[in-house]
Amino acid sequence: MKHIADSTVRRLSLYLRFLEEFERHGHATISSGELARSGGTTSAQVRKDLSFFGSFGKRGLGYGVSDLIASLRHILGLEARWPVVIVGAGKIGAALAQYRGFGTHGFDVVGVYDTDPARVGEALNGVPVRPDAQLEADIAALRPRIAVLCVPGEAAQPVLDRVVAAGIRAVLNFAPAALTAPEGVTVRTVNMATELEVLAFALTNAP
Amino acid sequence: MKHIADSTVRRLSLYLRFLEEFERHGHATISSGELARSGGTTSAQVRKDLSFFGSFGKRGLGYGVSDLIASLRHILGLEARWPVVIVGAGKIGAALAQYRGFGTHGFDVVGVYDTDPARVGEALNGVPVRPDAQLEADIAALRPRIAVLCVPGEAAQPVLDRVVAAGIRAVLNFAPAALTAPEGVTVRTVNMATELEVLAFALTNAP
Repeated sequence: MKHIADSTVRRLSLYLRFLEEFERHGHATISSGELARSGGTTSAQVRKDLSFFGSFGKRGLGYGVSDLIASLRHILGLEARWPVVIVGAGKIGAALAQYRGFGTHGFDVVGVYDTDPARVGEALNGVPVRPDAQLEADIAALRPRIAVLCVPGEAAQPVLDRVVAAGIRAVLNFAPAALTAPEGVTVRTVNMATELEVLAFALTNAP
Repeated sequence: MKHIADSTVRRLSLYLRFLEEFERHGHATISSGELARSGGTTSAQVRKDLSFFGSFGKRGLGYGVSDLIASLRHILGLEARWPVVIVGAGKIGAALAQYRGFGTHGFDVVGVYDTDPARVGEALNGVPVRPDAQLEADIAALRPRIAVLCVPGEAAQPVLDRVVAAGIRAVLNFAPAALTAPEGVTVRTVNMATELEVLAFALTNAP
C-alpha cells in the first residue's frame, strides 16, 4: 500500500466517529456530502480519502453505514483489540486509565505503572497500578502494543527508550516533551499547553 | 501581521517548552541547531519560524535563552493570564481542572460546570464545580476567554453554541465530535480515540 498521510488517517478516524453516531441514530445509508459536512470537509475529499482503500458506495445511493464502518475498522486495524500500557498514574494517567472510550474503541488497558509507592496497588477501572520497575517484565509477558506516557517531561525520553527496548512500536505521549524514537516507532504527542497556547495566539492576533 | 500557519504556532509553542527547560538547566544561550534538534526540525525552519516576528539572535552567538522566552511569550500572547472555564467535570474534565500545567502556563481555571447535581459543590484544585445552568451568568461575570469542553459527544455542539453566544471565541474540545463554529471562533479538538486509531493504523500497516 502506498504511504497514506497522517491527515488522511485522522479524517478516516473522524468519519468512523460519525458513522457510529449515524448508526446509533438508525441511519442505514449516508451520502459523501453528509459525511463531508460532519467532518468539516468536502464530498470530493471524502471520496478521495476512501479511494485509497478500494471502491465504496454506489453512485446516487451513497454508502451503506454498517458496511463503511466495517471497512474503516478494517483499514484502521481495529478488528483486533489492542493491549495498552499506561506509564504514570498521576492525574492525567489515572483519568485515561478510567476513560471508557479506550475499551469501546478496541483498546484494552492491561497495565498502569508508577514510581510512587503510595500509588502502587490502587485499582483504576479494575487495573491495579504496578511498580514502574515491573514495566519491562510486564511488556514481555502481556505483550502490549501501545504505550501511553503520562510522566513528567524530563522522565518521558528515558521511559520511551525503555518501552522501545522492550518491544513497543507505538507511543502516545502526554508529557510536555518532544521525543526522539528510532525508525519504525510511531510517537504521537498530545500537549495541553501547546493546544492552549495556539488558542491564546488566535485570541491575541484576532483581527 | 500576515497569516501564520497553525503548524508554525505549534512549533513556536514547542520551542518555548524547550527554552524553559534549557533555562531551568541554567543555559544562557542556545543555537538554532540545538533548538531544532529538540523540536525535531531543522535550523533553517527555526530561523524561518522566528523570522515572521522580527530579528532574533546574533550570528554565531545563538539566541539568548531568557530573551527568546520573553519574545515567544509575547508572540503567543502569554504575557496576559487567560481565564478558562471547563464544561464537564467527568474523568477528563476533573483531571484537567487539577492539571497544574494550566496555571504554570498562564491559564487560570475560573469555573468548572456539570449537569450532575452529585458533582456540583465538589472542589477541584480549589475551584468548586458549579451547576451547568450557571454557565452563561458566570461567563458574563468572570469573562473567561477560553472554554474547555469535556462533555459527551452529543452534548458538545449545544454547549459550544451556548459558550459562543455568551461571548467565548476560543474553545478546546475533548468531546468525540467535530464541531461547527461561526467565523472568528477558534475550535481545537483533541480526540483520544483518533490518536489511538492513528497508532493502530501505523502498527497494522508497518512494513
